Parts: sequence; C-alpha cells; structure tokens
Amino acid sequence: MIERLCVIGVGLIGGSLALALKEAEYVGHVVGVGRGAANLALARERGIIDEASHDPAAAVRGADMVLLAVPVGSVEAVCRQLAPALAEEAVLTDAGSVKGAVVAQVRRAFGGRVPARFVPGHPIAGTEQSGAGAAFAELYLGRRVLLTPLAETDPDATARVEAMWRAAGAEVERMTVAHHDEVLAATSHLPHLLAFGLVDSLARQEESREIFRYAAGGFRDFTRIASSDPVMWRDICLHNAEAILAALGAYRADLAELERAIAAGDGEALEAIFRRAKAARDRFCSDSTGCK
Amino acid sequence: MIERLCVIGVGLIGGSLALALKEAEYVGHVVGVGRGAANLALARERGIIDEASHDPAAAVRGADMVLLAVPVGSVEAVCRQLAPALAEEAVLTDAGSVKGAVVAQVRRAFGGRVPARFVPGHPIAGTEQSGAGAAFAELYLGRRVLLTPLAETDPDATARVEAMWRAAGAEVERMTVAHHDEVLAATSHLPHLLAFGLVDSLARQEESREIFRYAAGGFRDFTRIASSDPVMWRDICLHNAEAILAALGAYRADLAELERAIAAGDGEALEAIFRRAKAARDRFCSDSTGCK
Repeated sequence: MIERLCVIGVGLIGGSLALALKEAEYVGHVVGVGRGAANLALARERGIIDEASHDPAAAVRGADMVLLAVPVGSVEAVCRQLAPALAEEAVLTDAGSVKGAVVAQVRRAFGGRVPARFVPGHPIAGTEQSGAGAAFAELYLGRRVLLTPLAETDPDATARVEAMWRAAGAEVERMTVAHHDEVLAATSHLPHLLAFGLVDSLARQEESREIFRYAAGGFRDFTRIASSDPVMWRDICLHNAEAILAALGAYRADLAELERAIAAGDGEALEAIFRRAKAARDRFCSDSTGCK
Repeated sequence: MIERLCVIGVGLIGGSLALALKEAEYVGHVVGVGRGAANLALARERGIIDEASHDPAAAVRGADMVLLAVPVGSVEAVCRQLAPALAEEAVLTDAGSVKGAVVAQVRRAFGGRVPARFVPGHPIAGTEQSGAGAAFAELYLGRRVLLTPLAETDPDATARVEAMWRAAGAEVERMTVAHHDEVLAATSHLPHLLAFGLVDSLARQEESREIFRYAAGGFRDFTRIASSDPVMWRDICLHNAEAILAALGAYRADLAELERAIAAGDGEALEAIFRRAKAARDRFCSDSTGCK
C-alpha cells in the first residue's frame, strides 16, 4: 500500500499506473508533476492525480513512492531538482525503456552514489499514444515489468516496487541492467527505428501521398510504432546507443543477405529465411499472451 | 453476374472472393482448383466452392470468369494447362501482388500474346493467414483493388472484373503495370521483407527464446506480416526484384543516416527524422479508413 505516490511525467505510462493503483485501492493520494498545465489539468479531470505540481522538489515531499516517467534524457535534470527534498525512506523508481543510462544519470544527480532506495524499472507495455488523455487503468494487465536492482539496492525497496506493479496487474521479473538494455535494443528499440526509418524513407519520395494511398493493413501494423513520441525515442536512441548499434549491425547483415538473394534470384535462400522467420514469429505468438 | 466462376488457388484471397460473391448472389456456380485435397475438401465444407478439381483445364471449361489466385511464380505453369480449354469469351484475371511478371508469364503461356480477355488485378487486402480456412466474405469490404489493363485488353473484360470486385465490396482503381509494381514494392513488399529480416535476425541469436519472451505489442504488430506464407513471398521477391531492390536501396540509405546520427549522438537529426515519420504516419492514419 502506498500512502502518497508522486508521478513525475503524467503521460501514458505514469498516468496508467496511477489509474490502476487507484482502481486497486493501493494508493491514497497521487501528486502529478509535469511542465504542461493543460496535460496536468486533464489528468486531474480524469481522476488520474489528486494534486498537480510543476515543481518536483515540492511534490516529492512526504511521498513514500516516487515514479519517474519522463523521457530517459530528462532523468538527471529531474533528479537534481528532487534530490534535496526526497525523504530517506522514500522509494524512487522509474519506467524508462533504457536502464544503464538512467542509473548513470541518477548516480550523477545524487552526487556520485545511487540511492539505496532507487529501483530501476521498466514496464514492457505501451501504445503509440502519449499524454494523460491516453492513460488507461488496464495497460499493465498481464504485462511484464522488468526490475534491474543494483548490488547496492535495498531489497525492501525492490519488494515495494514489485508489489506496486503487481497491484497494477503486471508480472514482475528481475534481470541485470546490461542484459535488459541488450534484449530491449533487439525487441523494441530496433523495431521502432526500422519503422520510423521506413515511413520517413517513403515520406521523402515525391509521390508519397499516393504511395500511402495504396498501403494496407500490413503497412498500418508495421508502422504503428512510427506514430510514437519522437522525443521519447530520440532519448532512447541516444541513451542506449551501443546496444542499438549492435542490434542494427546484425540486422543490416541479415538485410544484405536478403538483398543478395533477391538480386541473384536465389529463391531457395529467400524461402529458407522466410520459413525460419515465420516459424519463430508463429512460436512467439503461441508463447505470448498478447498476440491476438 | 457470373454464371460459372473458376477459382484457381482456393486460399485466403480466392476463397474470400468466392464467399463474398456468393453472399452478394453475384455468382451461380464456383469451381475450385487446387493441389491439396484437404484444402479443397475444407473449401467445399465451408461452402466456398460447389465443386473441386485438381485439373485447371477441366475446371475452366464452361467458366465465364477465371481467377488465378496462386503464388505469382506459378502463373505460367497454370496458364499453360488451362490455355487450350479456356473459352474465347471467358474473362481471365488474377490477384497477384506483382503485375509485370504475371503479365509476362501469361504472355509466354499463351504463345507470346496476352489474351484480350485477360485483366491483371490485385486486391490490396489480406491477413498473415492462408488457406481456405482463413477465407472470409468481408475481406474486401472497403478495400482497394488495383486493375492494370494493357493496351490490348478488351474494355468489356476490364468492366466485368471491376463489377465483380465491386460486388465483393471493394473499391476499384486502375493504374499502369509499372506504377503498380513500384508503389507496392514500397508499401507492401519492402515492409514484409524488413519484418521477415528482423524476426530471422533475432531468431538466429542464441538467446532468441528469451529475446522473444520480452517482446511486447510493438514487436507483435511490427512482425505480424512475418507470419505470412513463405512461398508466396519468395515468389513476390523473385518477380518484382527490380522495384524491391530500388526501394530497399532507398531504405538502406535512410537507415545508414539513422545509424550515423545514433553513433554521433546527434539528437537533433534523430528527432527530425522521428517527427517527419510520425507526421506522415499520423496523416496516413487520418486519410485511411482502416487505421484503427
């Protein structure tokens, strides 16, 4: 049970958690922090938060749980503001898609030492929408949340964050920071990059309006993630560059093989690649709860 | 109105058209042709076809409309079989995702001359499923069908094919063969290739099982088309190689720019690309009927 939750960044991710915890009656009072007055007003109107603030330091005072749900490039600046006001016993966690860079920023903001009550986390859930208007209580139902506690992390803090996400309906797993960043580069960051790249590549072409006119369901689904928030994804790319470049390199080698097979008219090679991919994708779907 | 429709290849595409025309009472009798006995039996059981055959020549006898709905690499072989039995007044059309190579195959099969009653066509609709079991009458509702009649095509034949697709609920447009193949390379063939490539690239990695375990909705949608039929897509790649390689080349240049920006930590360039892509994708969605 959380008495006073402070959500910094009341968008899809932070707002949905607040809604879920309120529905579960797992939280007493929610303070939302953001820069946009209109978004905060909407969050109050929708009952996502009970109180709005533009000042992280004022907002974390008295909070027993603080969630950072801002683009990963803003973590250090926000933490510098809230650090002096954060209570010793308050638990600090985040929802960023990158963990290594977030930990490094928190360390810098807290004077070179990661607070023992900081628990790095990442809910693997979302849509291409953003803002408080997009938040909904069911976002985390059955979804995975990855926690990457450090050697210095207080186990009680990790347990509290875990309990919070479970109250929102999620399954919680733990892994190392480095492993998280590699796996997510492959399954999430790279696909986003490829989708953004494809839409941009087509949009630059002269007849782009006409090209999109003849696009169908496959294109729509493939490019859905290209409607995601540009700032959030800029930050992810900047802050998980090494793992993303490695994943992109492996992918480009695969693409070169496909290109060679097409240029050579090598139907056997193409069919083999497509069969392997289809088998893996079908297996992913039969393993996964959310494929239909 | 069609008296006797012959559908060669009773899968998602051919089967769905037969179902739609039956529901619209636009067709009298449907003969289905295929190699797989189980698929044809299922098609009869589901009322998609009234009669099954393994022999294209026997099946087209007496048909006033013949639809080729086989992988584009099989068109020539099928046409060689049915050519001697096709009535002079019968209309022949196809549903292939590639038009140039289909026209070339029909030309070769008919002794170097494309029949005047052949109308190349392509319904821009489908799912990642295949086979008669996946067919459904509503597949073409509100979808576009592109017809690419040639200079030598009988306008009456084109009108009949157009009327048939309209009866199935589709909107029909006309364009040239070359334009079709370029536009579809960009909006459909390239995305399929990229999705197959990504899934294969991940599946090859050692921890692939675990990688997929942490994939979420973005990955699921991005890779849906990688569950498509490998033979169909092998044939599309082989038969629209030139346009696909051109689209892939443009895309690889875009990807290289993204890679450079990530490696250089160039947040401004990344954000600009992501913003352009998001704007184009959001515009596509507001223009498109099928984006939700």
